[in-house]
Parts: sequence; C-alpha cells; structure tokens
Amino acid sequence: METLSIGQYDLIYNAFSFGFATLAAATLFFWLGIGQVKPQYKTALIVTGLVTFIAAYHYFRIGQSWSDAYTLADGTYVPTEKVFNAAYRYVDWLLTVPLLLVELILVMSLTRSETVSRATSLGLAALLMVALGYPGEVSDSGSMRWIFGLLSMIPFLWIVYQLYSGLGKAIENQPENARGLVRLARNVTVGSWCFYPVVYFAGAVGLEGATATVIVEVGYTIADIIAKAGFGVLIFLIAMRKSEDVADRNASTVPAE
Amino acid sequence: METLSIGQYDLIYNAFSFGFATLAAATLFFWLGIGQVKPQYKTALIVTGLVTFIAAYHYFRIGQSWSDAYTLADGTYVPTEKVFNAAYRYVDWLLTVPLLLVELILVMSLTRSETVSRATSLGLAALLMVALGYPGEVSDSGSMRWIFGLLSMIPFLWIVYQLYSGLGKAIENQPENARGLVRLARNVTVGSWCFYPVVYFAGAVGLEGATATVIVEVGYTIADIIAKAGFGVLIFLIAMRKSEDVADRNASTVPAE
Repeated sequence: METLSIGQYDLIYNAFSFGFATLAAATLFFWLGIGQVKPQYKTALIVTGLVTFIAAYHYFRIGQSWSDAYTLADGTYVPTEKVFNAAYRYVDWLLTVPLLLVELILVMSLTRSETVSRATSLGLAALLMVALGYPGEVSDSGSMRWIFGLLSMIPFLWIVYQLYSGLGKAIENQPENARGLVRLARNVTVGSWCFYPVVYFAGAVGLEGATATVIVEVGYTIADIIAKAGFGVLIFLIAMRKSEDVADRNASTVPAE
Repeated sequence: METLSIGQYDLIYNAFSFGFATLAAATLFFWLGIGQVKPQYKTALIVTGLVTFIAAYHYFRIGQSWSDAYTLADGTYVPTEKVFNAAYRYVDWLLTVPLLLVELILVMSLTRSETVSRATSLGLAALLMVALGYPGEVSDSGSMRWIFGLLSMIPFLWIVYQLYSGLGKAIENQPENARGLVRLARNVTVGSWCFYPVVYFAGAVGLEGATATVIVEVGYTIADIIAKAGFGVLIFLIAMRKSEDVADRNASTVPAE
C-alpha cells in the first residue's frame, strides 16, 4: 500500500459510503415494490434486492476496512499494518454476479427447464470469471494480473455471446411493451461489466501507486452501483411493465394508455 | 492456538464474512418468499429462514471472536489472550440442526401425528448428536476427540437410517412434481452432514496446527452454507412446486405453460 493525500483518501472513503447508501436504498426500493408486481415476477424482485443487500453489506465492511488500513500522520494518510481487505469485493462478486444473471432470466419468464438450464450455465460461467480474476487482483506482479485477467475474459466473452445469441432470441419473444427494456437490461449488463476489466487492467499498465488506487476503488464502486442498483431498476421496470400488460388484457374494456 | 500467516488468517476471516453474507441473504430470500406459497407450506419457509438467521447471527459473532483472538505482529498473526470461541458453532448447531430436520418434515405435509412424532424423535437425536460432539471439540486430547466423535456418530447413523427407511416411504408418496426434489433434499441433508465428521476428525488425525485450523474453520463454513442455505433453497423450491401443483389442479381449464 502507498501513502495517500487527504483528498485521495477522502474521495475513496466517500465513494464507499455513497456505494453503501445507494445499494441499501436500492434494496429497500426493490423489496417494497414486491407487492406491486404479478406473482411470477416476485422472485425476480426478491433476487434483485438480494444482490444489492449483499453488496451493501460488503460496502459497509469495505468502508470499515479502509478506515483501519490508513492512519493520518503529518497531513498524509499512511498505511497501517492492517492491509485493506480487497477480498470483500471478490467475495461479493462470487455471490452477486451469478445472481445478476438469474434476475435477468427470471424476469423474462422463460419455461421452467430453460430457466434452470440458462441460470445454471450462465451462473457457473460468472463464478469462474470472478474466481479467475482474484489471483491477479491480489498479486503484486503486473504479469500475474495480465494472465489471470485474460483467463477471466474467456468466461466473460462466453457470457456475452450467450446473452446475444441464445438469450437474444428469447428477448425478441418478450411482450412488445417490455422488449425494449429487456434489450436495454441485457446491454447494460454487458456495458457495465466491461467497466470492470478496464479498472482491473488499470492496475497492470503501470499507473502510479496512489492514482491507481483511486482509479481502482472509485471505478469499481461506480461499476457496482450501475451494474447492481441501476440494472436492478431496469428489472423492476420490466416486472412492472409486464404485470401491467396482464392487467390490461384482463380489463379489455378499459382503453390502454 | 497457533501462529497463522496473514494468508491463513485472512482466508478464515473472509470465509466467516462470506458465511454471514450468504446466510443473511438466504434468510431474507426465504422470508420474502413466504407470500408465494400455499398456507400449509408457510411454516416450512419460516423455519427455513430461522435456521439461516440463527446461523448468520453466529457467523457475525464468530467473525468478531476471530478478530479478537489474533493480533498482527511482525507480519504474522499471533494469538491474543482471548481464545477464539468455538462454542458459537455448537450453540448454533443445538438450535439449527433439529430445525433443519423439522423443515424437511414440514414441507412434506405428513399427517399431524406423524409430523409431531417424527419431528420430536429426529429433533432429539440431532440434539444428542451435537451435544456429544462438543466435549471432543474443545478437548486438547486426540483420544477424547475420537471417543466423543464416535459416540456422536450413533445418533447420526440413527437419523440417516430414519431418513431412508421410515421417511423414505413418505418421500415416495410425495406428489410426482416434487418427489425428486424431496429425495434430493434428503440426500443433501445426509451428504452435507457427512462433511462435519470429516472436518471434526481432521482435528484428531494429527494434522499440523495452522493447517488443521484452516481446514476445520473453512470446512465447517462450507458445510454450514450447503446444509443450511443450499438445503433451504431446495425446501423453498419444494414449497413453490407443491403450491403450484394445487393451483394447477384448481384451475384445470387453463392450459399449463
């Protein structure tokens, strides 16, 4: 770990606090909305809230670990003996990244067998992707970061391929009023996930220590908020829109909006 | 207690945090799903969430006790005066292990008298199993660990016998769409419980200190997650499947998806 200026330390600390507040609020938003959607979409909202709940817990712990990892001396923050616990992020991703794919699959209301098979294969690929990234993240060697980062890209690219090929057809079969949103949710998944390797490799291209720390920690925090809370809002909107659709059909004498 | 490397200490610390996050998220998942199942399965989901709630509480305490039990000195973690409280696990198991069997019995919707008699006999056997293991766990003597470990195996084997003989018949009488899942839940119970004696006796076969600590703590954590959260997901799926079955029968004019 390297010495940080007060501004650098505070920026990261505040990013963690912002992450906790956003993810905790998103959790409550998704769960309080469960009563508003049709039964077949309730599990999707429960899982969406689980993802942000797990992430909020980890941001709380990450904030504590950050406080313990530095001490103020002569106007700069110097590392203490307690190293900042980067593993919290990976433990979080191990749980939440497969669940993010499960959310998307659940809100699409595929057949039971397709739901199970796609959730299993995409979930396992996501687990592998996260697990392969960890050895590079904790290594001090830039080449280890490259090797494990590139290995981790293999399951990532497979997931992207699945989201556009296999799941692409299912997306085109979504009800018309939700199709655009499901497509957007799929694109936000891929787009926000692309941010992680950029941050990851920022630690491998020889950026200066303190600047690299700021980029990595703030970058991951922004990516987590978009990929979990932002993506979750899309899942919520899809569930609402599809619930509305059924209601409209049942009450066909009432003109559609 | 023995000196641990930073990697060993962190691995155990992160396993405890992962255990807390998984069990807390599982609790909320089960309880938020209560509204989705038929009334006769609600108690099964309430109990399923109780088990993971109790376990999440204990993992939170175990994590704190772990932090207090070691201090960083010259790059290694050395034990403090405060010994790590292994009793949290046994207190947890005293409550949760009988309840795990109750979950399985409740979701099977047996007759009231069979539910009461099986829950009582299996619950008491589980209590005895956990209570007999404790004196061996806290003893420094390998032979004490063997004696109490083997005594604890007697109620364990009786439970396994009951799950396959007495309860086996009831499982074959489950509705067809849930039978495979109930059978799987029974097998996961026995399979995941077999992991505990393996970890327990790892402390008796003379493994080296620090390595044994890592195996015991990480091993118990993985076993707890599978036996409580993983098993709970199966109970949830059984309750959902059986609720669906009733709904389908009541609305037989509506074609199945």
